[in-house]
Amino acid sequence: MRAEIIAVGSELLSFGRVESNSLFLASRLIPLGFDLPRKSVVADDPEVLTQTLDFALQASKLVLITGGLGPTEDDVTRDAVARHLGRKLREDPELLERLNSRYRRFAQMMTDNNRRQACVPEGAVVFPNPIGTAPGLGLEHEGRRIVLLPGPPRELEPMVDRHVLPWLKHSWSLSPRPLRIVKVAGEAESAVDHRIAPLTRRERRVQTTILSSPGIVSLYFLWSGGRDPEAERILDDLVESVCRELGDAVYSRQEESPAAALGKRLSRLGWSLAVAESCTGGWIGKLVTDVAGSSNYFRGGIVSYSNEVKIRVLGVERVVLESEGAVSAAVAEAMAENTRRLLEADIGLSATGVAGPSGGSEAKPVGTVFLGLAREGRVASQKLWFPGDREAVRLRTAHVGLDWVRRECDAAIRRH
Amino acid sequence: MRAEIIAVGSELLSFGRVESNSLFLASRLIPLGFDLPRKSVVADDPEVLTQTLDFALQASKLVLITGGLGPTEDDVTRDAVARHLGRKLREDPELLERLNSRYRRFAQMMTDNNRRQACVPEGAVVFPNPIGTAPGLGLEHEGRRIVLLPGPPRELEPMVDRHVLPWLKHSWSLSPRPLRIVKVAGEAESAVDHRIAPLTRRERRVQTTILSSPGIVSLYFLWSGGRDPEAERILDDLVESVCRELGDAVYSRQEESPAAALGKRLSRLGWSLAVAESCTGGWIGKLVTDVAGSSNYFRGGIVSYSNEVKIRVLGVERVVLESEGAVSAAVAEAMAENTRRLLEADIGLSATGVAGPSGGSEAKPVGTVFLGLAREGRVASQKLWFPGDREAVRLRTAHVGLDWVRRECDAAIRRH
Repeated sequence: MRAEIIAVGSELLSFGRVESNSLFLASRLIPLGFDLPRKSVVADDPEVLTQTLDFALQASKLVLITGGLGPTEDDVTRDAVARHLGRKLREDPELLERLNSRYRRFAQMMTDNNRRQACVPEGAVVFPNPIGTAPGLGLEHEGRRIVLLPGPPRELEPMVDRHVLPWLKHSWSLSPRPLRIVKVAGEAESAVDHRIAPLTRRERRVQTTILSSPGIVSLYFLWSGGRDPEAERILDDLVESVCRELGDAVYSRQEESPAAALGKRLSRLGWSLAVAESCTGGWIGKLVTDVAGSSNYFRGGIVSYSNEVKIRVLGVERVVLESEGAVSAAVAEAMAENTRRLLEADIGLSATGVAGPSGGSEAKPVGTVFLGLAREGRVASQKLWFPGDREAVRLRTAHVGLDWVRRECDAAIRRH
Repeated sequence: MRAEIIAVGSELLSFGRVESNSLFLASRLIPLGFDLPRKSVVADDPEVLTQTLDFALQASKLVLITGGLGPTEDDVTRDAVARHLGRKLREDPELLERLNSRYRRFAQMMTDNNRRQACVPEGAVVFPNPIGTAPGLGLEHEGRRIVLLPGPPRELEPMVDRHVLPWLKHSWSLSPRPLRIVKVAGEAESAVDHRIAPLTRRERRVQTTILSSPGIVSLYFLWSGGRDPEAERILDDLVESVCRELGDAVYSRQEESPAAALGKRLSRLGWSLAVAESCTGGWIGKLVTDVAGSSNYFRGGIVSYSNEVKIRVLGVERVVLESEGAVSAAVAEAMAENTRRLLEADIGLSATGVAGPSGGSEAKPVGTVFLGLAREGRVASQKLWFPGDREAVRLRTAHVGLDWVRRECDAAIRRH
């Protein structure tokens, strides 16, 4: 069944604001059995919106419109859609009372513009919004459905899960398409593709999507063989064989970062982590601490962006720095071991490299990175070369480094 | 003059890939005089693409189609557009030769699919692509223009600047709309809006857009009064009065980050920076080192995510940590001063706070942050409270902290 998204907001068409609600909606609608062959972003302009809605309704059974439900003049969605469908707007007394009490709570006056948010097109289903002021709305029109949703993700996302999906499932007969996710770190997209192609090609009823971002390859396996009681089992078998093929490179079977996956292992083992960062400049620590609760296993780190800090704070020997250079196996190993000892952690991870755009040499071109990993009584390093610009080299370094620690943890868990 | 963007790519409609070329295109097309009231993202499906193109051509004089020009089966743009416009595809011998030599250089075989990239619709202008394999194409059709562009930003962006914009300007009479940018840090969007509204409301021919992201408010002033020799002067006058009103909060008049703006000041003063991060976990260092050349002024930092590291590495006194708590003015000041001394920097910046979601208390709720700033013989701290989730609190902390150092630098530059 075909669905389409229209995001309303002039700010999404001008200066640096990216539309992202559609990604969340896709993650919910695709496994439910909807196809999403198009989305549109339109300005706060009733004419552009209604033309686009009309065009969408010609092809799609479901149209989701996000944004433009707020209290300002620019918020055109509710009025434009009601007028286009020939529905009168009626003030809903219950919504008005909730709005009233909300504005009173924040000691604000409710203006006529605010009151508009209590208006509901005839025949619409109201989806409550406990977080913001604008409720969502569901409309049926000539066998099609139109859903109006508030723009802020923290309002839209719970509303979709709690109210919109049940409403869609309630009276439409959908063919759910189960989805499996496999996350891989430290491997190139082409290498992953090459290894799994013989497996995925054998199963034509599963649609495989491979997406890569620096240091991470994400695999999505979507059932596309129609209703079939065997779908879940076939998917699970395929994922099992893919994971067997990729082995240690698979860090998760759900949508999570390498740092989050690592955090679970460290917690399980009761191990603590310290980092020493040169080219990444703090990015590894940032990724580790993106995860709530990381203070349970993350001690901290030393960002040794200058040689003097490597020497004075981390205790790297000056003679080693001078003979081997800051980007070297010896320095990476000293950084890992010394941060581990200094911060009293079970594992020390270090990164030193040439992120570019300048600083490269023939022997160590831009993209050359050494990672170091230290545990009690043992230290190792690896030399890597990463393609891409400064940002890509740095992020790849951080993800591959964190994933190296994750592999160490997994090996320890297997030994236990 | 109305323009519209169609991005082609199924991956932009499914799992976590956001379309961003349209932001770059908007930044170029809007000041040139184009309106962009709609963009679409379509799957790799010739029928959806041609329907959407047809719909776009009804309303817009210019349609830019990005992506789908590569060598794989999924790359449908070139064929679908040529067929829809009734143009035959002809192999361009010069393009074929360039492709051939490119594939030879990478020691790859050129397949029939690869050859398709040398095919050009009759009457099309070819925009060279020195970085990738697919050239851009420009077509005229019933008084309208259609531009096909490669999807990868590093191929698209230089092609647009070097070839597409000159082609558009060459034979169309456009009314350029000059644009001015003002970047503000450390102020809430509503406060900035309130302060500048009396100034912007006075000038109806300038369209003001305010966008906020954690710690940053971006102001865009776009001329919308038609052709006028006074436009540039009126804009400059408005920006001058806005900057006077906002004073020290303005960190730049171009699109750059607080860290990049700070880097310029540190370079000018010859000052070096060291950081001590608790709640930000390395994010401040990451932002500083996002800027190429930051090794000229950034010494590094200590990520003291645990109290033990604050004590052992940073030399914060245990008794202070225990009496005041880790999130306190005393600890922020000790962190800033001690990292400055340990890393031998001119300025020390520290951050300690409750990023959430847990860890808050009545006295120090989630969002409470102390920043510390140390210079030779002087140390200061400020207590702040930031709204938002863990990510927003952390990023606000980093940007407001960096901007505090930037203000110190500006004060020093004024004294010089």
